[in-house]
Amino acid sequence: MNKTPRFLVVGAGAIGSFYGAILKRAGCQVSVVLRSDYDAVKADGFRFTSPLGDLSWMPDHVYQPGDTPDVFPDYVLLCVKVLPGVDRAALVRPWMGEHTGLVLIQNGLDIERELAEAFPAHPLVSCLAFIAVSRVAPGEVKHQAYGQLVMGNFPKGFDDHCQQLSALFRDGGIDISESEAVVGERWRKCVWNTPFNPLSVLANGADTLSILDAPGGEDLIRTMMEEVMAVAEADGYPLPADLVEKNLAGTRKMGAYKNSMALDYLNGRPIELDAILGNVVAIADTLKVPVPHLRTVLTALRIRNS
Amino acid sequence: MNKTPRFLVVGAGAIGSFYGAILKRAGCQVSVVLRSDYDAVKADGFRFTSPLGDLSWMPDHVYQPGDTPDVFPDYVLLCVKVLPGVDRAALVRPWMGEHTGLVLIQNGLDIERELAEAFPAHPLVSCLAFIAVSRVAPGEVKHQAYGQLVMGNFPKGFDDHCQQLSALFRDGGIDISESEAVVGERWRKCVWNTPFNPLSVLANGADTLSILDAPGGEDLIRTMMEEVMAVAEADGYPLPADLVEKNLAGTRKMGAYKNSMALDYLNGRPIELDAILGNVVAIADTLKVPVPHLRTVLTALRIRNS
Repeated sequence: MNKTPRFLVVGAGAIGSFYGAILKRAGCQVSVVLRSDYDAVKADGFRFTSPLGDLSWMPDHVYQPGDTPDVFPDYVLLCVKVLPGVDRAALVRPWMGEHTGLVLIQNGLDIERELAEAFPAHPLVSCLAFIAVSRVAPGEVKHQAYGQLVMGNFPKGFDDHCQQLSALFRDGGIDISESEAVVGERWRKCVWNTPFNPLSVLANGADTLSILDAPGGEDLIRTMMEEVMAVAEADGYPLPADLVEKNLAGTRKMGAYKNSMALDYLNGRPIELDAILGNVVAIADTLKVPVPHLRTVLTALRIRNS
Repeated sequence: MNKTPRFLVVGAGAIGSFYGAILKRAGCQVSVVLRSDYDAVKADGFRFTSPLGDLSWMPDHVYQPGDTPDVFPDYVLLCVKVLPGVDRAALVRPWMGEHTGLVLIQNGLDIERELAEAFPAHPLVSCLAFIAVSRVAPGEVKHQAYGQLVMGNFPKGFDDHCQQLSALFRDGGIDISESEAVVGERWRKCVWNTPFNPLSVLANGADTLSILDAPGGEDLIRTMMEEVMAVAEADGYPLPADLVEKNLAGTRKMGAYKNSMALDYLNGRPIELDAILGNVVAIADTLKVPVPHLRTVLTALRIRNS
């Protein structure tokens, strides 16, 4: 791998175009597949505002779905939201050469399995993004803060592909947290996201402090966090006992905050309900862990969306 | 009590003006206390459309809050919604003579206690209305269907006042279901209302079949009904074991239906959350009955309203 690494970003929205920019800064070739923003990006590339400096960049190739790649990439970066009806394996299949690795930068739990099953012979790297970034217009992205990736192979380990990717992202200017057990890191993030995100949507976009300060709100969040911890432990990923109280204290310290799912809801965009909550309840059912509070929130949102 | 019985309706909205009309048809004197619709009703009385015929009527007196009664009534009919911040005892106190009885026509559970404590020496009759009626404009009411009252003394029994009231309402043309244990009847109604009403609000006004047909919806309703049954039993009001399945079958048979709390929510009116759900959870906590699904729905709505 001494040649310039080639990346293809599938789903180059805010997240995808940000990490594409980072890889471009690291000297990689980076192309993108775009649907709605194709014309804008083909003409002018991605324009960024970011505390990291000028991240604006022009992809090496701008593809549309249905195009044929000029050369298969070394890595496909899959950054679409995880939504029912979005067949992620079908989205990436045309771009996967024999040796192409698949890198997921996506939120949620148990979101790797369908891709691991679809591409069993390919390297699969799973990343969690800790970032505040949003697309403000076609090709225009506002990076507000952060950018760290937690990275590891699915379901576990940290192979040479991870090593290479980690080095490239670091060259591009962001922190990488290397993990031999990335699924455990997904569980850890779910302890916060799984209660707060869907509950904020159910409360029509409430911020974190509105949730904690409502009568019974902090108790409900705590109980939901404990349910997530119990499922994680049954799934083989025990988490530190003090994580719930640390999460609560950290949330209060951060001040009122609308999470990304609340913002998706308030802006009329689909929410990643299964990735963040539905999959947790499904695993709980398989492992026979009672999750009445999580299930009630999930079902109420499914009723609303049905 | 051979003289013409005198009634005063406090909160003469749709419900209050309907039962006022029935008592008027039975030959009673019926006056009202009104706030926002005072001018309209003072000028033209109540105008009705109803399958029972022409129920339009002119009250004997139309009062405003702050007025002094000409004569204390035999009965005050209290028909306001049960909402936090509405001091029902203060609303009726100016109109309660030494011998005035208090008749509640209100939804929910444990809604009598604060009035029983405020007026311990007065007869207290508790009624549940099974009716579809709505106020369409000041003084204009549309009665769509039904009208039956379940009636009894609070907390139990069926005294001479109940006998007299029951006879008058029947004279006026509606059915009365006499109950020696009206609190048990409130629990029975809660088995349906406590799950369906708040859940429909949480789902932004979903109808009954949307709730039952969503993934996990029927299971959630069933579980919430079972939680209500368990609290009722612990409170001393065991209900028939087949009530849950009968309720579910009856709901499906009725077809898609938006309950009154869903309509209140969709029309921007306050909802009787405590009367229908909060009081059930409070009793459950006192009696140490676990109600995780009811509590999650309650807390989510409290977060939304906070």
